[in-house]
Amino acid sequence: MKKPKWVVEKEQAKRAAAAETLWLFGLHAVRDALVNPDRQRLRLVVTRNAADKLAAAIAASAMEPEIADPRRFPVPLDPGSVHQGAALEVRPLDWGSVADRCAAGDDGGGRAIVVALDRVTDPHNVGAILRSAEVFGARAVIAPARHAAPETGALAKTASGALERQPYLRVRNLTAALEELRDMGFVLLGLAGEAEQDLGDGLSAHAGRPVALVLGAEGPGLRDGTRAACDALVRVPATGAFGSLNVSNAAAVALYAARTGA
Amino acid sequence: MKKPKWVVEKEQAKRAAAAETLWLFGLHAVRDALVNPDRQRLRLVVTRNAADKLAAAIAASAMEPEIADPRRFPVPLDPGSVHQGAALEVRPLDWGSVADRCAAGDDGGGRAIVVALDRVTDPHNVGAILRSAEVFGARAVIAPARHAAPETGALAKTASGALERQPYLRVRNLTAALEELRDMGFVLLGLAGEAEQDLGDGLSAHAGRPVALVLGAEGPGLRDGTRAACDALVRVPATGAFGSLNVSNAAAVALYAARTGA
Repeated sequence: MKKPKWVVEKEQAKRAAAAETLWLFGLHAVRDALVNPDRQRLRLVVTRNAADKLAAAIAASAMEPEIADPRRFPVPLDPGSVHQGAALEVRPLDWGSVADRCAAGDDGGGRAIVVALDRVTDPHNVGAILRSAEVFGARAVIAPARHAAPETGALAKTASGALERQPYLRVRNLTAALEELRDMGFVLLGLAGEAEQDLGDGLSAHAGRPVALVLGAEGPGLRDGTRAACDALVRVPATGAFGSLNVSNAAAVALYAARTGA
Repeated sequence: MKKPKWVVEKEQAKRAAAAETLWLFGLHAVRDALVNPDRQRLRLVVTRNAADKLAAAIAASAMEPEIADPRRFPVPLDPGSVHQGAALEVRPLDWGSVADRCAAGDDGGGRAIVVALDRVTDPHNVGAILRSAEVFGARAVIAPARHAAPETGALAKTASGALERQPYLRVRNLTAALEELRDMGFVLLGLAGEAEQDLGDGLSAHAGRPVALVLGAEGPGLRDGTRAACDALVRVPATGAFGSLNVSNAAAVALYAARTGA
């Protein structure tokens, strides 16, 4: 009996995902991926100079590096990628499910925090957000599988090592993931410029409860469905009459407020 | 009598600075520069499509746009610059002196805030910091004339309009500018990862006083002289064991804390 088309397609997608690899680059990103036991590594290409700088991490990884000529670096990177003579081909990390990652964790004695991103596609913004999420001890950063920045070398470089340590969960349906968080006891605070409640007030109104900070892309902001799924909308208080924060800066401020507030 | 060499060089530098121009690009940056009465504008190059979108701003500027073919956009921009069919050649803004910009201002009922950057050279970081400084109503962002990100199209694009409105002062000597701020009554708080005092505690220890937030480049951090000039060093409290904030995220957090704290 022939398999139905949707089964074939699902299997194909699974095989494609399993085959998917990416090139990490730059000393910091490559070093952190070399020492991450959860990272599947395929090829390591380094200049002599970079091999010296990464000697300890290379030894720890037990990989055999391919030594490259710095003038003819044989790795398919975007032009302008500052690779510093180091590139590592890897598979994306598998962080498991929302339940796995968000139900429990070490929150440093404070409230549990999760960040949810609604169609934030810029890899530099997502990289910076992963970095801030790690600093402030968020349990995970959650984004939809489609219309979000995928794990790439550029994202890893901006994340400055945090990609290896900070769970970045890609889910099929963001609204469903938010509902799941609510069922787990999280209060969902959506950041929106037009909200009437200040961020600090919104956080202290639910003091001590686990909180999910929901941020949208610059410009469009939160989609209607995402907005409706939130328990409350809050704004970062602004003094100036013009302008708005870059989304990674808004995330950093929200994480700081959630971590240091009541 | 022949002029001494240093006088000749100073005059040359002055002429070079007067002749210096830059290309702003992208709809947002070009629009905001077109309507800024303090901006000296030289050439406006736009596609038909961009000309339509910018019609009101072009009319307000009374400039005669040069209409360009989108496939052969005749402006010397870095490859990868997302110009959206709009580019404007301008002269850098002259924001005047530290005294002019920091002695008084509208602080939205809160304390006066200034941001000082010690050798932050990445234009995207400085652009994002200008944007946050505007949102939180800082009086100025101060940076040394050398070893800081100059006013460029890339910086303007990241600043998303804030470059036209948020004073960005380039000073010859950052330490001297910090001393000047102290004489004006500012308390100087330097952000340093190894500091023992938390940002929030450092701010409330000097509640109500004007504050200068001093940030260094990622990696090297504050230089010794800058560090010594500060009244206190403070840290952004971190929960995670690894990582540090991107400098623009650290600036956003510090600005938020200074604006909303005591």
